[in-house]
Amino acid sequence: MRTWDLAITLDGRADVPVFVQIARAVAEDIRRGRLKPGDRLPGSRTLAERLGVHRNTVLAAYDELHAEGWLTTHRASGTYVSDTLPDPSPRRFATTVRSRETMPARVGFDLPPLVETGASGAYPRGTLVMTGGVPDLRTVPVAELARAYRRVLRRHAREVLSYGDPRGIVRLRRALAEMVSSVRGLCATEESVVVTRGSQMALDAVARVLITPGDVVAVESFGYRPAWNALKHAGAELVPIPVDADGLRLDALRQLCTQRRVRAVYVTPHHQYPTTVVLSAGRRMELLTLAREKRIAIIEDDYDHEFHYDGRPVLPLASADVAGVVIYVGTLSKILAPGLRMGFVAAPTPLVERLAAVRTFIDRQGDQATESAVAELLEEGEVQRHARRVRRAYQSRRDALATALHRELGGVVEFQLPPGGMALWTRVNPDVDTDAWAERALGQGVAFFSGRRYAFDGRARPYVRLGFAALTENEIAEAVRRMRAALPTRAKSRSAA
Amino acid sequence: MRTWDLAITLDGRADVPVFVQIARAVAEDIRRGRLKPGDRLPGSRTLAERLGVHRNTVLAAYDELHAEGWLTTHRASGTYVSDTLPDPSPRRFATTVRSRETMPARVGFDLPPLVETGASGAYPRGTLVMTGGVPDLRTVPVAELARAYRRVLRRHAREVLSYGDPRGIVRLRRALAEMVSSVRGLCATEESVVVTRGSQMALDAVARVLITPGDVVAVESFGYRPAWNALKHAGAELVPIPVDADGLRLDALRQLCTQRRVRAVYVTPHHQYPTTVVLSAGRRMELLTLAREKRIAIIEDDYDHEFHYDGRPVLPLASADVAGVVIYVGTLSKILAPGLRMGFVAAPTPLVERLAAVRTFIDRQGDQATESAVAELLEEGEVQRHARRVRRAYQSRRDALATALHRELGGVVEFQLPPGGMALWTRVNPDVDTDAWAERALGQGVAFFSGRRYAFDGRARPYVRLGFAALTENEIAEAVRRMRAALPTRAKSRSAA
Repeated sequence: MRTWDLAITLDGRADVPVFVQIARAVAEDIRRGRLKPGDRLPGSRTLAERLGVHRNTVLAAYDELHAEGWLTTHRASGTYVSDTLPDPSPRRFATTVRSRETMPARVGFDLPPLVETGASGAYPRGTLVMTGGVPDLRTVPVAELARAYRRVLRRHAREVLSYGDPRGIVRLRRALAEMVSSVRGLCATEESVVVTRGSQMALDAVARVLITPGDVVAVESFGYRPAWNALKHAGAELVPIPVDADGLRLDALRQLCTQRRVRAVYVTPHHQYPTTVVLSAGRRMELLTLAREKRIAIIEDDYDHEFHYDGRPVLPLASADVAGVVIYVGTLSKILAPGLRMGFVAAPTPLVERLAAVRTFIDRQGDQATESAVAELLEEGEVQRHARRVRRAYQSRRDALATALHRELGGVVEFQLPPGGMALWTRVNPDVDTDAWAERALGQGVAFFSGRRYAFDGRARPYVRLGFAALTENEIAEAVRRMRAALPTRAKSRSAA
Repeated sequence: MRTWDLAITLDGRADVPVFVQIARAVAEDIRRGRLKPGDRLPGSRTLAERLGVHRNTVLAAYDELHAEGWLTTHRASGTYVSDTLPDPSPRRFATTVRSRETMPARVGFDLPPLVETGASGAYPRGTLVMTGGVPDLRTVPVAELARAYRRVLRRHAREVLSYGDPRGIVRLRRALAEMVSSVRGLCATEESVVVTRGSQMALDAVARVLITPGDVVAVESFGYRPAWNALKHAGAELVPIPVDADGLRLDALRQLCTQRRVRAVYVTPHHQYPTTVVLSAGRRMELLTLAREKRIAIIEDDYDHEFHYDGRPVLPLASADVAGVVIYVGTLSKILAPGLRMGFVAAPTPLVERLAAVRTFIDRQGDQATESAVAELLEEGEVQRHARRVRRAYQSRRDALATALHRELGGVVEFQLPPGGMALWTRVNPDVDTDAWAERALGQGVAFFSGRRYAFDGRARPYVRLGFAALTENEIAEAVRRMRAALPTRAKSRSAA
């Protein structure tokens, strides 16, 4: 029998466990031809002594090599290099299978270019964030949520931990159906609701069901870029339709319909995103009629239904849809918390079935523990109570922001007090470079977005959007002072004048 | 001033709130021309008395109508029908905007046909489920999980409830990187890991990054249909490659590469799904080399790494990948619970960045409460302890199933004892109609799938797959007795002979 010495320097502090180091060294020796098919390996005790490791470590290495097919064991007679090892050219694999120190830095196949998502990163601590969209998380009923998780896991652990209905757990679908039926006029049942991970997945799943590459989808501009991204990624050709003080310009949409076959229109009729205007009654009717005539799907994103301050919320388009043209998208991101990713679609069942099928491809099903916990909060009325509480707070914050803007930036911004929503859309004096302002403001510790972000063509516009929901009234006052301090110099002197 | 009588029968028990009923009746009267622009409406007190409702109800109805643009209010002088109401042809909207009793049953736009997902529904209570894939959820450390949720919500509520990193929370990425580095040889860091919702979202996101419609992707057959669905939905043309006792047939893949440009290959090298065979060492090297030469992405689905019973788990292809061709997909569905939807991708950072971008389109980010809770369980070693405990149990269950099959169905099924995994892949005597058997078995209270489900062409094959992980040894014995009782008659007599 040949004598074989394992050429290896073991490194006890390396990231790679010792047994793996041994296994790789043996495999390397086989590849190099130092060990040949049929060669017998030293006994585990012998090799352990020689390497100064525990015998179990060597056994683990041999197990690994055996499992990988490098070694075979003839019971009672020892461990041998496998005969059936394909080994046409040992050097050929030497670099392929050698032990790695780090992940490869590059990929060995072609990749498409990185897509710009527009997602913003984290801000430095202490930044007053007015980028909007985020509710005040300091007020979320966290203790109740934690209790709900515990109850769910105690009582329904097996159900929530198992595979389940891709449409979402029935309790949550029922609670959501009740919510939209009782206060939003939809008459939905659990069969017409699909739970999604935030409105984003609702939009993505709807896009994947509806869109065949090349389909024309009309969108609002100014508008909501994450929705555009989902639609575009599904292959849609997006056509921007302008918005004015009454919301989406129906004349422009009608005009588009005369030129192109429009598959769908994405709208935010309640508080148009980002301008917060309400789609007027006349345009609502016109949109529903046009959609019915032309068989256009209306994707209605009602992302902040509850946050209407002056009068009742306007009922959604879906509440008046008898033709089955409206796909209603809702979310709990604003009335509870975005991190829970709780959204939903309410729509006729043929669409619900297709969304459920697409859902099985995306992620099989939702997070049932979270779905159940949120269902409990809805059943107990906790979400509704919370929404009422924060609605009052947000209304005061809206007014505080308006007051502060008038006081500090009267000559720089002008705006209509929005009847609802979580942000003010303000026109900025054209002398001010809004992009420079937003950039300088970050340095002063306040974050907001300028109009460019919401414009379909991505070009500068003399607007900024100021979210007020996540800040207290004192923080709002401070944020506006910082905004003033950050004004680009030319504009500052004019504002002081 | 005209006298106007509201024509409405209020229904206190209807699903639609009374204020909505009033608002709709008024809007209907405007549409019909019974109320005209400029008409004054009765005061809220008057109308409340007339209708026998609380004054606040009428005020809510007026608020709604005002918000929708039907009414205007001249301070101190009263409420009027809006002058700016577009009203070209009242009757035209009469049916469009009328109050709805139910959701429309049909959609008013074109829908693609419903896709068959292969998702199985719930089984009757008492069914012994051997369809595989589900671990034994009775053993999951539920109390620890509930505690972890509570701690996370107490200490990190604002972070987990807010918008965050689309790659997943850093704690979980770090814990997963450590897991795959310490026991799977990958040398990953948090920068090379993206958390996904189960392996399904990993596959879907990878497909959406990689695939341009028409790209050829090689898949195993027998194989895993949910992966095929995700790839196909992204536009891939799938080409099945046969598997044998050593796993994927590399000669067939090489042959395909001479004919077509292959973009990616989807493989389950550890325990091939569904046959549970281990991809041999030689084929592993050959696959890595071929991928490097041809710039093919290898999507390696290592869904049940820990459940290897005879010797150590085989290290993944990704552990030997220096060329950056392997996209490693892992999941906690098997070692923890599928309902948590915790999967991940480990790959070179250029791919990680693109997955993060696609993730923002899909659902923006994961469930951060669940991600944090699972990170705690990993940091505390709870997942690892749980995996060790269940691995021992599953090994005994595998052996119990083998024994029961030999005893009860010796003449009907034959199989190799698999070195790992959660199921036995058994060849069935060709006299037995496996589809009929599976169907009759459901009636006897045992569920399993026949070969057809795993075959690329969806045609019958003389195999059944029997999952053993979710059943105790007693339940396994009972399940096999039920299987025998359910044998189609012709085969039963032969087995008894």
